Amino acid sequence: MRVSELVARSGVPLATVKYYLREGLLPPGRATGATQAVYGDDHVRRLALIRVLVDVVGLSVQRTRDVLGAIDEPGDSVYEAIGRAVAALPPAAERRDDYPRTRALLERHGQVYDPGFAAVAQLERALEAADAAGTPYDDAHLDAYARASRIIAEADLARVPRTSPEAAIEYAVIGTAVGDPLLAALRRLAQQDAAAGSIDREVGRG
Amino acid sequence: MRVSELVARSGVPLATVKYYLREGLLPPGRATGATQAVYGDDHVRRLALIRVLVDVVGLSVQRTRDVLGAIDEPGDSVYEAIGRAVAALPPAAERRDDYPRTRALLERHGQVYDPGFAAVAQLERALEAADAAGTPYDDAHLDAYARASRIIAEADLARVPRTSPEAAIEYAVIGTAVGDPLLAALRRLAQQDAAAGSIDREVGRG
Repeated sequence: MRVSELVARSGVPLATVKYYLREGLLPPGRATGATQAVYGDDHVRRLALIRVLVDVVGLSVQRTRDVLGAIDEPGDSVYEAIGRAVAALPPAAERRDDYPRTRALLERHGQVYDPGFAAVAQLERALEAADAAGTPYDDAHLDAYARASRIIAEADLARVPRTSPEAAIEYAVIGTAVGDPLLAALRRLAQQDAAAGSIDREVGRG
Repeated sequence: MRVSELVARSGVPLATVKYYLREGLLPPGRATGATQAVYGDDHVRRLALIRVLVDVVGLSVQRTRDVLGAIDEPGDSVYEAIGRAVAALPPAAERRDDYPRTRALLERHGQVYDPGFAAVAQLERALEAADAAGTPYDDAHLDAYARASRIIAEADLARVPRTSPEAAIEYAVIGTAVGDPLLAALRRLAQQDAAAGSIDREVGRG
């Protein structure tokens, strides 16, 4: 297809498509002349992915490039490529040598503690923030979260396509990026549903 | 306590404390002279809350003020004040008149659909993003998420202090703000745990 059709099908404005081409986020089309190129369905799908990363997640161009790099060059392990791609998504967290709170939690749950996992640093930062705010998490609260996270992760993993490494990594990235705000919204709705009609009575205001 | 002790106990630099005082995020201390004031434990707690909202969540000063306003002037309903405070937290979503995807989902689950809830707009935006990326959520996937969200919400709600409206709203804000990245990290760790050793074999690369 011509670039005009790529714009129409993707809904991404021409100036933005050109910007993504220039920045190397979108691979070039097949040249059909000095100033013309044709694009394929891969380009439509790549644009949809870029929009999720830039618009929904709010990633920078550099971070988006990191994610796309893990999809385009997965290496020998899909598992590790997913890890690299997802590590570029929020929540941001500084890397260190050790994460004592997270280590204790994962060991209690019989899960592998690997300080190289981005999510380990992310979890430590959240646990520290709760402590600093004077509302530390108790073990039973974290256990409930871990149980819920297991349900979520299994539902996610069941839907990862097994057709190719690229498809698997791309799905994992979109599912993680879109699933986070989706789960945050569902959590708030479930809280409202559970609190409606009781919380005011219980704090003596209903 | 003097402002120097407030700085020491909160870990927030003096210039930042003064900035929060100027912006009205931190209430003034009790004046003890033309240029001196004393501060209380309330100020230490308020600073911890502001740091969560600004540093962990990344809220603007205006959004932070909205959250604090709901705590300081809860009105007649704690439930509604929590709703107002939490609505100022991410994920951001444009408000509209109707949210058909979310309405269908909530009706299927027997939950109240109220287009005035910020979380309804947030959920719709996430569902739209998944559709636009070519990876729409199926009902069974969303049902698993809803089940997990119920576990999370009930664990959260059980820990909301019933001592005062202010304490309840403050806890709900911190728990929502810190809980989101914490749950995102736990989701990633559960995904890694569930995928380890299987995903590569299944996509024919192991």
